[in-house]
Amino acid sequence: MTKIEQVIDYIDMQLKSRRLTPSMRLPSVRLLAKELHFSVSTIVEAYERMVSMGIIEARAGAGFFVCAPLEPLILSNIEPIREKSLDPLWISRQLLEASAQLIKVGCGWLPDDWMPHESLRKAIRDASKSSISELVHYSSPLGLLGLRELLARRLYNKAIEVTPDQILLTDSGSYSIDLICRFLLKPDDVVLVDDPCYFNFRALLKVHQVKIIGIPYTAQGPDIEAFKQAIEQYHPRLYITNSGIHNPTGATLSQPTAHQLVSLIEQANMVVVEDDIFSDFETTHSPRFSALDGLNHSIYIGSFSKTLSASVRCGYIVAKKEWIDHLVDLKVATSFSNSNFSAQILYRALTDGSYRKHMEQLKIKLAEAMQFNVQMFEKLQIKPWIIPKAGIFLWCELPTDIDIKKMADYCTENGVVLALGSSFSQSDRFQQFLRFNVAQCMHPDIFSILEKAMRYARHAPA
Amino acid sequence: MTKIEQVIDYIDMQLKSRRLTPSMRLPSVRLLAKELHFSVSTIVEAYERMVSMGIIEARAGAGFFVCAPLEPLILSNIEPIREKSLDPLWISRQLLEASAQLIKVGCGWLPDDWMPHESLRKAIRDASKSSISELVHYSSPLGLLGLRELLARRLYNKAIEVTPDQILLTDSGSYSIDLICRFLLKPDDVVLVDDPCYFNFRALLKVHQVKIIGIPYTAQGPDIEAFKQAIEQYHPRLYITNSGIHNPTGATLSQPTAHQLVSLIEQANMVVVEDDIFSDFETTHSPRFSALDGLNHSIYIGSFSKTLSASVRCGYIVAKKEWIDHLVDLKVATSFSNSNFSAQILYRALTDGSYRKHMEQLKIKLAEAMQFNVQMFEKLQIKPWIIPKAGIFLWCELPTDIDIKKMADYCTENGVVLALGSSFSQSDRFQQFLRFNVAQCMHPDIFSILEKAMRYARHAPA
Repeated sequence: MTKIEQVIDYIDMQLKSRRLTPSMRLPSVRLLAKELHFSVSTIVEAYERMVSMGIIEARAGAGFFVCAPLEPLILSNIEPIREKSLDPLWISRQLLEASAQLIKVGCGWLPDDWMPHESLRKAIRDASKSSISELVHYSSPLGLLGLRELLARRLYNKAIEVTPDQILLTDSGSYSIDLICRFLLKPDDVVLVDDPCYFNFRALLKVHQVKIIGIPYTAQGPDIEAFKQAIEQYHPRLYITNSGIHNPTGATLSQPTAHQLVSLIEQANMVVVEDDIFSDFETTHSPRFSALDGLNHSIYIGSFSKTLSASVRCGYIVAKKEWIDHLVDLKVATSFSNSNFSAQILYRALTDGSYRKHMEQLKIKLAEAMQFNVQMFEKLQIKPWIIPKAGIFLWCELPTDIDIKKMADYCTENGVVLALGSSFSQSDRFQQFLRFNVAQCMHPDIFSILEKAMRYARHAPA
Repeated sequence: MTKIEQVIDYIDMQLKSRRLTPSMRLPSVRLLAKELHFSVSTIVEAYERMVSMGIIEARAGAGFFVCAPLEPLILSNIEPIREKSLDPLWISRQLLEASAQLIKVGCGWLPDDWMPHESLRKAIRDASKSSISELVHYSSPLGLLGLRELLARRLYNKAIEVTPDQILLTDSGSYSIDLICRFLLKPDDVVLVDDPCYFNFRALLKVHQVKIIGIPYTAQGPDIEAFKQAIEQYHPRLYITNSGIHNPTGATLSQPTAHQLVSLIEQANMVVVEDDIFSDFETTHSPRFSALDGLNHSIYIGSFSKTLSASVRCGYIVAKKEWIDHLVDLKVATSFSNSNFSAQILYRALTDGSYRKHMEQLKIKLAEAMQFNVQMFEKLQIKPWIIPKAGIFLWCELPTDIDIKKMADYCTENGVVLALGSSFSQSDRFQQFLRFNVAQCMHPDIFSILEKAMRYARHAPA
């Protein structure tokens, strides 16, 4: 590589790493010459070549400026290309696109007929009789007051004491987290996630172009020592987690772990975002950061997509009042409003007496499904990492002599879609893991397909 | 200012302008000393003071790094503070928060009872009988196929030929533009908007931290000469406009202007985003960039909030196939899905025979309202900038001897909320303008209140 090429390469790296962005001035010729220990004429020649390549431009008397071409944010280009089946975006799209015929034993939602569709139908019929204004008008900036009041009462039962004006309704839980990331993050900030964690957290954080650090997750919550070290080493801004029932492990936070984490987060002046989307599946109470910390360094997120509907969508953000004020501005600027009609349907369904009954029955059904699955997996030597107290997930380790990729291929060919452990992690710690959804595994054929797949995918003994 | 303070000030400016961002390495002490012509010890002293102030930190052997505190994106802090009544976010929030009692003569939506609420109620009742899956399940990544097919047919009538897989459904028009901005913009990019333009475009662009340049809008579209100059001077990435019926002026693009702009945009390798939200109000066809340009350098946006419902929300993006692919990734990462149930309701309402009839009647009603308003304004010496061919807006200039602020105050006290011209512009060209919504001005009291307000707000003759 000639010296001139070295200079071009150097500037190119600065562009790729976004240290130099469009319209920024490049270092002066003299300065760069000194920095790289090259002659001024080498730098001049390199800059002129870059001008002719259309990468930079010279402005009379002002120096050289970046004029990078229009370069869209292509998410799949941000990280080094991994195997497609491990890309979090690919996983989401595959699950969302998969035909209804396929059995998605690893997906994150209940089978359709386990959802409270009768409450929902009734709520929709009632909502069709709303006032014209409720049918056609924009929502107020914070969103439907009735639903926010109801949420404030529900949160009180989780020891999170807030007023309805500390709750902001949005169109979904994911969008809520996105709004918070916009509010609190800049590119190159560091964000902690659990290892393993919900794959879409990583996809979302890619959009924000931050550095993602995984903290090993234990049966009591994130590993405290690793969390401490990450704080010292990386100065993270944010920690994003599912605090109620953890995705994908099904674990719940222990009181001591939650308490220690709240202290660490406070000392480090960082913020924890807890996405409590599986909250309504809980049968016993587990700690919430927002309750312990009084929403000082924490933000609480929820939605109804797992328990009521993922088609009639509404999410919400619970935070300190002054943050909500700024988040409203961001919401208005980026989506102007939220679906007030969806909020009305969900409010009606939640306050319908039959919803609570449905949830009680659902929890019993899930507990039975969990027990059944654990037994079936035992026979197959598929080992649950823990037996969760509640929820839909079973995070399982497969025998080391099973080639998981081969097993997944066999399953797909036979109409069963698996959720591979490695898609929940940036590390390679979970290559022998699968996430199962116990409600989706009640289909009689599944375990025989799994058994055949494992037989097919077993390595010959060495 | 001492030399040390000058150094601190210099670094501080780099931080404020985001040339230095969290975790970035500062210039080495030696380099900065050379650049600023100060001694090495001055720089060392300045850096050490900044370390003690918690702005930067020293890492052994690696140099000094930015450790700026967690600094949320507070939109109202981004621009120099203007009068609150001119802040685009404040306008949006005021209009959305205003009580139903107030008459919002300048708002951007129809009175509730002008909306097709009967079609909507019927669509909701029908949708309550959907399959369970339609009620509870996530949408496919692109969104409801039936609605996309319908949109493709409707677009064909506007000479925009696309397949349904070039259409991406989202939860709103605003969110659609936001997604495109994320895809195509980086901070400090330049974006052209019309002067005047829809105020929320500026609020949205503030979130993306880009530079906004206003192009004077003429009765035929943006001023071509000013557009050319802006391209040469600023190298813009994007131009965002309402191409069908322009907000706030009600103007439509002329064929020659559209044609010239398409050429300019192509040559400059920039992209035009046309938000065609008022499309269904058109009575005669006007050109669309996406039709002329074949979606090569253009993206088309639409929604149903003005003609069907702003409470049951759905927007869409029409673009070239390879961009849609990447936009789907961004949509999945940031909001996972969109409200499939809203899409179903809107699809049912749009395909209901009575909707077309409603729109035909509505257009006649709007034309009558337009005529009535023009006559009433003439009596008050309020001068429409043009008489729009269709739509809801009348962009009006008031006599120079009226103090608009005083007039607005009087109106607010009497239950009438005005939309001030200056909130549609970064320039001060429209201080004597008001945007009126002709459908909202059919209230008998309005013109007498306006007359009294003008009498109250008239300057004494000099």
